[in-house]
Amino acid sequence: MTRVRVHNFNISLDGYGAGETITLDAPIGGAERLFARFDGRVIHGVDAVDDPITLDRALTSIWGQGIGAEIMGRGKFGPQTGDWADDDWRGWWGDAPPFRTPVVVLTHHPRDPISFGNGTSFHFLDATPEDALAYARGLTDGGDIRIGGGPSTVRQFLAAGLIDFMHLVTVPITLGTGVSMWEGLTDVQEGFSIESVTSASGLTHHLWNRTGAD
Amino acid sequence: MTRVRVHNFNISLDGYGAGETITLDAPIGGAERLFARFDGRVIHGVDAVDDPITLDRALTSIWGQGIGAEIMGRGKFGPQTGDWADDDWRGWWGDAPPFRTPVVVLTHHPRDPISFGNGTSFHFLDATPEDALAYARGLTDGGDIRIGGGPSTVRQFLAAGLIDFMHLVTVPITLGTGVSMWEGLTDVQEGFSIESVTSASGLTHHLWNRTGAD
Repeated sequence: MTRVRVHNFNISLDGYGAGETITLDAPIGGAERLFARFDGRVIHGVDAVDDPITLDRALTSIWGQGIGAEIMGRGKFGPQTGDWADDDWRGWWGDAPPFRTPVVVLTHHPRDPISFGNGTSFHFLDATPEDALAYARGLTDGGDIRIGGGPSTVRQFLAAGLIDFMHLVTVPITLGTGVSMWEGLTDVQEGFSIESVTSASGLTHHLWNRTGAD
Repeated sequence: MTRVRVHNFNISLDGYGAGETITLDAPIGGAERLFARFDGRVIHGVDAVDDPITLDRALTSIWGQGIGAEIMGRGKFGPQTGDWADDDWRGWWGDAPPFRTPVVVLTHHPRDPISFGNGTSFHFLDATPEDALAYARGLTDGGDIRIGGGPSTVRQFLAAGLIDFMHLVTVPITLGTGVSMWEGLTDVQEGFSIESVTSASGLTHHLWNRTGAD
């Protein structure tokens, strides 16, 4: 069976992974400063930038390796809510979204798929985490599935026991408000082996691997 | 200009990166225990294995990203010395060497190139580091060049000031004898920014990035 992976997921000291309200000017809902120290959101590899290969860069550069499809919440795809008033919206990323695989967008308001020339396509689905995972696996030739966020989407897959690997990043700031990564998840660490390491930028990287012992 | 990179290069506490004498049974010249804690020599990515994505695994998994060609010493290609008595030798790696790019093998005894179906080819060259680098760049479409070792090969490129990035790994063992990584290289750290981090296996990973200030 292929793995279900989370990568490069930044969380504040007080446990928030995004702001409450996504707008066109605030794609992380006002929590953009989660990425001020190092922006590892959509980097495919060390070959995609000319910057030094720091620890932050190295650890975020395995984001795309072996990934066959992503699953994301609707808030990551765009700021709209409810019915799709503007069907011309094709995501934040212009003509070449960085995913380069099929992407399942979880929404209660399905619409027709969208395809791009670089291998990225968006498929809109109203489904449980289990069903979304089965659907995403059907879109790939056997690659791993990445859960792309936001925090409530990752939290749902965690609560369902579906995550095999997570690369979480603690950012040494407080946001005070936002979407919590951990709400309702008591002892979510059980069943995982966890390594933590700090980097020169002040980030702490956490690698969670499911041990199968939960 | 593309970068010149060294990856996953293990060194003992006493500074050795390989044993003195390569044989068919000892491809690291008796220093095989450099890889007993974690064997990250020829892993292309986290997609190439089913093992947990530990810190060791994550950091060694960028080995192939953006690489257009490798340069290696003759001892990495095989145990032979002097003239090629056995032209049937095609390297240690069977029918699918893990490199998947052109590889320049430095030797005073050039022979005809060897090609494999998976993108790997070996090109035998008697040249200085500078000339080998120019030759390797001519074999790629602009990818980075990896210096694949052994230690004396990496040391020559370091001494010539040609290395842009190195991922070195200190292994907490002493070998007592072998090929030194550091012989004759006083203050080789000058001109590099260096991050070091430990992993649960006891390894210390060092990321050297050239700052251009040397």
